[in-house]
Amino acid sequence: MKKTLLITGCAGFIGSHLVDFLLKKKYKIIGLDNLSTGKKFFLKKALRNKNFKFIKIDLLKKNIDRYFKNVNIVYHLAANADVRFGLRHRKKDINQNILVTYKVLEAMKKNNVKKIAFSSTGSVYGEAEQIPTKENTFFPIQTSLYGASKISAEAIISAYCEGYDIKSYIFRFVSILGERYTHGHVFDFLKQLKKNKNKLKVLGDGNQKKSYLNINDCIYAMYKSIKFFNKNVNIINLGTNEYINVKKSIQIICEVLKLNPQIIYKGGKRGWVGDNPFILLDIKKIKSTGWKPKFSINDSIKITAKYLLKNSWLLKKI
Amino acid sequence: MKKTLLITGCAGFIGSHLVDFLLKKKYKIIGLDNLSTGKKFFLKKALRNKNFKFIKIDLLKKNIDRYFKNVNIVYHLAANADVRFGLRHRKKDINQNILVTYKVLEAMKKNNVKKIAFSSTGSVYGEAEQIPTKENTFFPIQTSLYGASKISAEAIISAYCEGYDIKSYIFRFVSILGERYTHGHVFDFLKQLKKNKNKLKVLGDGNQKKSYLNINDCIYAMYKSIKFFNKNVNIINLGTNEYINVKKSIQIICEVLKLNPQIIYKGGKRGWVGDNPFILLDIKKIKSTGWKPKFSINDSIKITAKYLLKNSWLLKKI
Repeated sequence: MKKTLLITGCAGFIGSHLVDFLLKKKYKIIGLDNLSTGKKFFLKKALRNKNFKFIKIDLLKKNIDRYFKNVNIVYHLAANADVRFGLRHRKKDINQNILVTYKVLEAMKKNNVKKIAFSSTGSVYGEAEQIPTKENTFFPIQTSLYGASKISAEAIISAYCEGYDIKSYIFRFVSILGERYTHGHVFDFLKQLKKNKNKLKVLGDGNQKKSYLNINDCIYAMYKSIKFFNKNVNIINLGTNEYINVKKSIQIICEVLKLNPQIIYKGGKRGWVGDNPFILLDIKKIKSTGWKPKFSINDSIKITAKYLLKNSWLLKKI
Repeated sequence: MKKTLLITGCAGFIGSHLVDFLLKKKYKIIGLDNLSTGKKFFLKKALRNKNFKFIKIDLLKKNIDRYFKNVNIVYHLAANADVRFGLRHRKKDINQNILVTYKVLEAMKKNNVKKIAFSSTGSVYGEAEQIPTKENTFFPIQTSLYGASKISAEAIISAYCEGYDIKSYIFRFVSILGERYTHGHVFDFLKQLKKNKNKLKVLGDGNQKKSYLNINDCIYAMYKSIKFFNKNVNIINLGTNEYINVKKSIQIICEVLKLNPQIIYKGGKRGWVGDNPFILLDIKKIKSTGWKPKFSINDSIKITAKYLLKNSWLLKKI
């Protein structure tokens, strides 16, 4: 019999792609999501599959223990993923990213679930001293509440692994692009241009370098890692060797949109307080599994822009 | 006018010594403690000082904002410091060490308090790859829920520093010894010997090496650091270059007690799940302030044992 997997945040960008991917592999999936940022629209295909069971639930407020019965692996993706406005709603990072992770681990413990995959972030490296940044780089100082909440969740997961013989797969992502992408630089730019095709306001000086990974590459890397790595705590960077600066991203977007707006840079090394001027992850570890990215950043930005043009209601709604 | 300081966990081991020290320096002190593990007995002298205001309060459950008005520096020492039984009462580490820190930071933000000193732990290094362990050593994997909760608190504090121009002094302690010491190895051994002077059961194989710092050295190092370091986030190891193994500690205790018990080692590299076999911190950074420890580990164990003999009700009560 195929294993049962539980995915929190199953209606999100990464979650919904993971659902589709794992359904193709014939797993049974229990998907939890409160639909606060996730969308049922992303699960349209999955919801027709008898191996997928969707439960709309608030992980913070409700008792979630019963959903973990007979589950083999938990993919804990539910989170407040809003890095930029972390300081505006501080309780959200604490609640959604730390307390919910604790609740998930407790539910796993009660039901004897022994594997967890967790979506962390390259932001935990703060302003990395070492670039590209290795998983075991120097002990970083956190610069964003989002990064702080993710490192907290990582740490709590690791302690449960040690205490209860649980295996964890902690993925430190760069920003992910692709279909169903609904927040971040590229999204914000498209949203602005949808409103006003002649003007684009950009935080920072446009020289911030970012590394982006395609969602399909990301999902496959997660899948490969769980098959390949076997320590109690497996921490894996997911990114590409490529990077791009904000100016160049904008150029690609404008090409897809066939626009030539006036671009106004607000200036400064950082896009916002707590923004990392440069995230580039060392990906030797994930590449040791045989995985390598199939999509270039250029392609990923184009795919994303085209998807959002096609589904432009997403730009209005969020 | 002398500055007003606020100390959470003011009735604890470290807190009460800090209160005494800073009262001598003529500061005004607001001390908060729920007296769950702290003791009013430790504040006996302080309570007679007009510059000290003690408030018994549960930091987790109550609104604490008003106590932070006109405060210059917060010493946030309140915590669940029970490393060993972290896995037995998991919610305690989450609540007392993460959520309370968040509440303290929120209270600081509301009252525009710009400095925080925080008691972290050498346990955040997990099983350190580098010994002696530097502050910026390799990104560690957490092995205890206590360490996890402290690294979470450190991370959240750092994010607030970045966001709100707060200065923080994060102290990563080794175990501290001295008068008013009420938990840890030495305490457990004395407690056992008080019950049965002929037999001592020891977790692990007795070869665990530990570094201990004297409470007076610890307090003075904290004081020096805040005067000396000036970054937004200042992370400082507090320890000594010395270490001792459990067998030798027991020998010193037995000498003070004039006992010769049968010692039964339970075996194993670790005292308990999540225990660090060896913590030795690199203390170059704190020594750069001119500080150096005045007490040897040998002296500190003797002082501690004598204090607990004199106040043997503490052994019974805890």
